[in-house]
Amino acid sequence: MSKLKRTHTCGQLRIKDVKSTVTLLGWVSSIRDHGGLIFIDLRDRYGITQVVFNPDKGNEFYTTAGQLRPEYVVAIQGAVSARPEGTLNPNLDTGEIEVYADTLEILNKSETPPFEIEDESKVSLELRLKHRYLDLRRPVMQRRLIFRHKVCQVIREYLDRLNFIDIETPVLTKSTPEGARDYLVPSRVNLGKFYALPQSPQLFKQILMVAGYDRYFQIVRCFRDEDLRAQRQPEFTQMDMEMSFVDENDIIQIIEGLVAAIFDKVIGKKVATPFPRLSYNEAMASYGCDAPDLRFGMKIKDISDIVQKSDFKVFLDTVKSGGQVRGVNANGCGNFSRKDIDDLTAFVGQFGAKGLAWFKVEEKGLSSSITKFFPEETREKIRQYMDAKKGDLLLFVADKPKVVSQSLAQLRLHLAQKNKLIDTNTFYFSWVVDFPLFDYNEDLQRYEALHHPFTSPHPDDLPILEEKPLEVKARAYDLVLNGVELGGGSIRIHAPEVQKRVFRLLGIEDESAYAKFGFLLDALKYGAPPHGGIALGVDRMVTLLLQLDDIREVIAFPKTQKATCLMTNAPSEVDLQQLKELGIRLL
Amino acid sequence: MSKLKRTHTCGQLRIKDVKSTVTLLGWVSSIRDHGGLIFIDLRDRYGITQVVFNPDKGNEFYTTAGQLRPEYVVAIQGAVSARPEGTLNPNLDTGEIEVYADTLEILNKSETPPFEIEDESKVSLELRLKHRYLDLRRPVMQRRLIFRHKVCQVIREYLDRLNFIDIETPVLTKSTPEGARDYLVPSRVNLGKFYALPQSPQLFKQILMVAGYDRYFQIVRCFRDEDLRAQRQPEFTQMDMEMSFVDENDIIQIIEGLVAAIFDKVIGKKVATPFPRLSYNEAMASYGCDAPDLRFGMKIKDISDIVQKSDFKVFLDTVKSGGQVRGVNANGCGNFSRKDIDDLTAFVGQFGAKGLAWFKVEEKGLSSSITKFFPEETREKIRQYMDAKKGDLLLFVADKPKVVSQSLAQLRLHLAQKNKLIDTNTFYFSWVVDFPLFDYNEDLQRYEALHHPFTSPHPDDLPILEEKPLEVKARAYDLVLNGVELGGGSIRIHAPEVQKRVFRLLGIEDESAYAKFGFLLDALKYGAPPHGGIALGVDRMVTLLLQLDDIREVIAFPKTQKATCLMTNAPSEVDLQQLKELGIRLL
Repeated sequence: MSKLKRTHTCGQLRIKDVKSTVTLLGWVSSIRDHGGLIFIDLRDRYGITQVVFNPDKGNEFYTTAGQLRPEYVVAIQGAVSARPEGTLNPNLDTGEIEVYADTLEILNKSETPPFEIEDESKVSLELRLKHRYLDLRRPVMQRRLIFRHKVCQVIREYLDRLNFIDIETPVLTKSTPEGARDYLVPSRVNLGKFYALPQSPQLFKQILMVAGYDRYFQIVRCFRDEDLRAQRQPEFTQMDMEMSFVDENDIIQIIEGLVAAIFDKVIGKKVATPFPRLSYNEAMASYGCDAPDLRFGMKIKDISDIVQKSDFKVFLDTVKSGGQVRGVNANGCGNFSRKDIDDLTAFVGQFGAKGLAWFKVEEKGLSSSITKFFPEETREKIRQYMDAKKGDLLLFVADKPKVVSQSLAQLRLHLAQKNKLIDTNTFYFSWVVDFPLFDYNEDLQRYEALHHPFTSPHPDDLPILEEKPLEVKARAYDLVLNGVELGGGSIRIHAPEVQKRVFRLLGIEDESAYAKFGFLLDALKYGAPPHGGIALGVDRMVTLLLQLDDIREVIAFPKTQKATCLMTNAPSEVDLQQLKELGIRLL
Repeated sequence: MSKLKRTHTCGQLRIKDVKSTVTLLGWVSSIRDHGGLIFIDLRDRYGITQVVFNPDKGNEFYTTAGQLRPEYVVAIQGAVSARPEGTLNPNLDTGEIEVYADTLEILNKSETPPFEIEDESKVSLELRLKHRYLDLRRPVMQRRLIFRHKVCQVIREYLDRLNFIDIETPVLTKSTPEGARDYLVPSRVNLGKFYALPQSPQLFKQILMVAGYDRYFQIVRCFRDEDLRAQRQPEFTQMDMEMSFVDENDIIQIIEGLVAAIFDKVIGKKVATPFPRLSYNEAMASYGCDAPDLRFGMKIKDISDIVQKSDFKVFLDTVKSGGQVRGVNANGCGNFSRKDIDDLTAFVGQFGAKGLAWFKVEEKGLSSSITKFFPEETREKIRQYMDAKKGDLLLFVADKPKVVSQSLAQLRLHLAQKNKLIDTNTFYFSWVVDFPLFDYNEDLQRYEALHHPFTSPHPDDLPILEEKPLEVKARAYDLVLNGVELGGGSIRIHAPEVQKRVFRLLGIEDESAYAKFGFLLDALKYGAPPHGGIALGVDRMVTLLLQLDDIREVIAFPKTQKATCLMTNAPSEVDLQQLKELGIRLL
């Protein structure tokens, strides 16, 4: 047990504390000998304080101080002193003072760490993960995890103030219909049966609405047995909420208020609300995707009609067979070389586009290797419609709508990054609304729910539900930040007959629906209120707010499948006897 | 979509709102016809409001109101009116007003529920769990879950204010050394290997201390594959915290402050701090267990020495062979019949006691069938030592210390319940401290950690660690409320050499320790600060604070192994193809 009790943190002392006797505990961050004195930067989560050992005072401790090495854990006691003129450090909160130590206790030693504990780390992610306890000790990582804590705390306080109740839902549960692979847990009591780890608490929160809880929220772990990607983890955290007696606008307003509260209390900035809303159709038409990055323009435009007056067979055939010709104006890229354009063609090729038509905008009008196929009048129409001026480059893809959207969405982002069109200091939030309820899966030849099977159709579209399912709009909404979907939600179905009609369209016939979702259909029979909600990815939101690329920078113990950097959360071999008790064996 | 937007909740309107036009949405709780008017009790989470339909106003809605049934979900609009004299309901917060509805919309119908939605439910737990969405709609269940939410919210706010950081630890992890059975999750990416669901975040929070986070907390789900009991669930929630640079008193004070904050802000009562502390030895001696119920006295006393002056062979032989004679004074039970005492003998028999010796205290002294074996002087000594007066009953067990403790601990509780000695309005908190570090497992012939292998020995006992392990005290502490352990914690080992010595004593040799806890031993090498923490059972705490017997009353979706009341959280059959992908098959 240390004899010295901490009186202050290493980030706390100021000029007003001069002459106080203080005790600090922390890690030795650096050691310098200067003019016969030993200077130690002592670090803890709260900051750094300069500690001085003077050979005149207490020789015993001066000698010990000489033996200190980086990352030793020490307790020091001494008097706070103003730093001599010329030695103040304006980069440190404690930069006006230093502590003259007259007592030193080594609480623990440290081997030489495999990398330095400093913000700028040049070592590999693998090494950082292997020694995560040292990686997390870097002040920049501490700031990130503290930021994440604050975001969660603001979410909780905001929702608590609005009468939301935090209710825990089970982790050992039945399969949920979210489409991804479930993690399974064999049951020892019911041999041959398995729990599933939840992909979301969707059904539980709907049950809570039926049970009259009115406003529910949870910051909750969810699980998907998917392959790892930089923005994805097999276990992730979402802010999940659900409300009764509301419509889309109520949910959207509450979330906008929540985002504003996070900006206000954690980031110290204002955010403008309400966020712009785009319909799904607008988003797909102008940006080629349903999570558009609106920090820059370069909208996609459709010239399928205009090019009817041309002899360019590729365009004409594409449109004739139900395809489209759409493109973007790459402002100021008229000086791109043939090689540059070939690279762009290869780029869109990754997303299925078979070619990339281009026009450079010159004094005299559009110029290209295909100019000859387009009458003067058509070229001028294209120029005007694309808002093109001298020095611009127009790029077009002609293909099936899906391919055109995908390749142009990516091309737009690619050009914006290349030309530095994105103001990385901006947070641009938007809502995408009016999604279709169903998608048609060509391979399986059946309808699929675009969100999930509990999303309410728009009431105006109920009459055409069976007749024209693909025209039915969903009461769904996604929140998008800087081109990334933060999450989404919907008003749910509360009428049991409507739920049955939707199940039927999805090919979940009544009997099998009952086996799978019977408790929900039962619940809807006993007075389910109109309700809706949303789920936002907490890890993803924090990563974006901190303007980081990798979600692992905001999670203390990230998953990784590489055995070399597994920390403690790797799968491991288990006792065969234990497997036998669970009624399973290895293949 | 409902045309009517809620303006007030059903618990909100007061006499000052009279003449306002309001819109309420909720469930029909009851319907009464009276004097040509229809009275509806409209219920939501916030309360009940009486709604009146008058045939004079808007006949259409009066007719619709006549078709309402219990648990229909409706929206009504109307004017707030003061109730006529004599019809005020002092039991309702809204009991001074009623709303004369001029609009009614049925938002959803309800079949007749299988039980009534009221506080006092006489139906079986099975039926309640089967229709949990209706069970949770009962106002008493809503109050309990809201109470639970508030407790968690107070915990978070209190710890946030004290600079604790909420950091999430993984759910898919390696086996933790907590002693219970792990739930396993087969890994698809590493076939033949398994994740374990964590029994606690113990090792992760220690890593966080090594990483310099100083103060960590989490309200976290933990998992133990154990059989269900009323106070236990296979997945449970604990308030987990850890601090650096502290000793036992720091942790104890913070938790006492936390309990006081919960009482202040959620229960509206004061709780006296500091809580009394008992050593483990005192607790075992006076109460026979390490989680004593201190709401009543009836301390256990040891008469092993006194009875040396007797001819009672059972007592003499027991003491000679290393056993004890201990007992309690059942105040005022001197009138117990032979049958009563036989019942008590059978009761202690369940806990291994082979008999129960008794003395009734009469005017002339102790009286019993075994009086003759005890000289007058010895009997008087027993009477005095047991603080016995006329009308009392003294009960003794002679056996091995463990059996004596167990059976007397239970006997003490049994007598207290029988004689109503327990003031059930009292919350009696205490700390049990100075636990032994090790226990000796007679069956396996080896030492076991009484808490866990990371608990720090008392530094004074380090010299005798290997020599007299059973005499080494642990720096551990348990929080006890009304005879139930709410949780416990300890100061941990931060010196790698001490950790290795403890592992060695536990038979975890260096190499295997490294395979199992290598990352912890590694972490301790790089400047681990002195640290300690605690974990408290949230479900258990809430259950006790609400004075309920069953933990399932404070959890929305409890686990149960009975197929008939499984809600959604039952294990189920899965696709054999999916098992194949996981590299496992059923036995």
